[in-house]
Amino acid sequence: MTARDDRSGRVLTPEPLTASAFAPFGDVIDAASASEVLTVNRGYATRFHDLARIDTSAQGGRTAVSLFRATPVFLPFEVATMERHPLGSQAFVPLGRRPFLAVAAPPGDFDPAGVRVFLAQGGQGVNYARGTWHHFLLALEETSDFLVIDRAGEGANLDEFRLMPADSLVIR
Amino acid sequence: MTARDDRSGRVLTPEPLTASAFAPFGDVIDAASASEVLTVNRGYATRFHDLARIDTSAQGGRTAVSLFRATPVFLPFEVATMERHPLGSQAFVPLGRRPFLAVAAPPGDFDPAGVRVFLAQGGQGVNYARGTWHHFLLALEETSDFLVIDRAGEGANLDEFRLMPADSLVIR
Repeated sequence: MTARDDRSGRVLTPEPLTASAFAPFGDVIDAASASEVLTVNRGYATRFHDLARIDTSAQGGRTAVSLFRATPVFLPFEVATMERHPLGSQAFVPLGRRPFLAVAAPPGDFDPAGVRVFLAQGGQGVNYARGTWHHFLLALEETSDFLVIDRAGEGANLDEFRLMPADSLVIR
Repeated sequence: MTARDDRSGRVLTPEPLTASAFAPFGDVIDAASASEVLTVNRGYATRFHDLARIDTSAQGGRTAVSLFRATPVFLPFEVATMERHPLGSQAFVPLGRRPFLAVAAPPGDFDPAGVRVFLAQGGQGVNYARGTWHHFLLALEETSDFLVIDRAGEGANLDEFRLMPADSLVIR
């Protein structure tokens, strides 16, 4: 949802994170998004299968697994920069149940009007598709750890876009 | 640590999970195991980089990300079967702080004498290297969710070994 801020830019209100709402930007990693659910391990586990399209092999890349320890932000928060990874997808899965914000815009030329904000909660993760614009990780409430699955390897895999003051976006 | 059970098989006592102890079987996924630590996201996050060797491309495989919801086991627990994935690595990262057990044995012909049990705690994850024998996921205490990173694709990627009664192993 959007509205005009009193002073300047557009105000973004977080929307719920669902697989269908997030589909233009990538995948939601949670049990509710699974299209295939299997009983495995002799009945000791349920497998919610294949929740994210991992896309890291461009230009000889490989999949890297890392931990991010993120300092929280507090609202209102101004979106000043966005980034994209032209060579690989990037997934963030919280190692806990705390919420975070996923800020995304469609691939291609960056359009401030296309930015949307999703509230991930209850342990939901996201996987940004290769080339999708997004803000860096915005933890909420407390310092939080995330598992990150992205691309390692040679090549220019980071583009940044700095918003002009006229295009200012504020998350409230 | 091992000892002889009163009745029959060998008794296994969980040992602490450290990168060096687990090295013959794969990777420990935790901040303490990182050899490269970076400040990213304009200072909002610390990246503990590249913690697991993801090895899923054999025979046209790809990396799959899934959730496992695991029913806990209680000790004593008998190790009756072991498994290995000849075509891919398999990582388990708990989406919480609860402990779990990682049971592993070296690749090659299965040797009951080579089985070791590790207690993962405080959010530690493991990545079993391709071909490493391991028990299926053993959650402790409560039903627990794990992020699983393994291989999807064609090909025979599961071998199971059923232990003979004479080789019985009990975790206490």
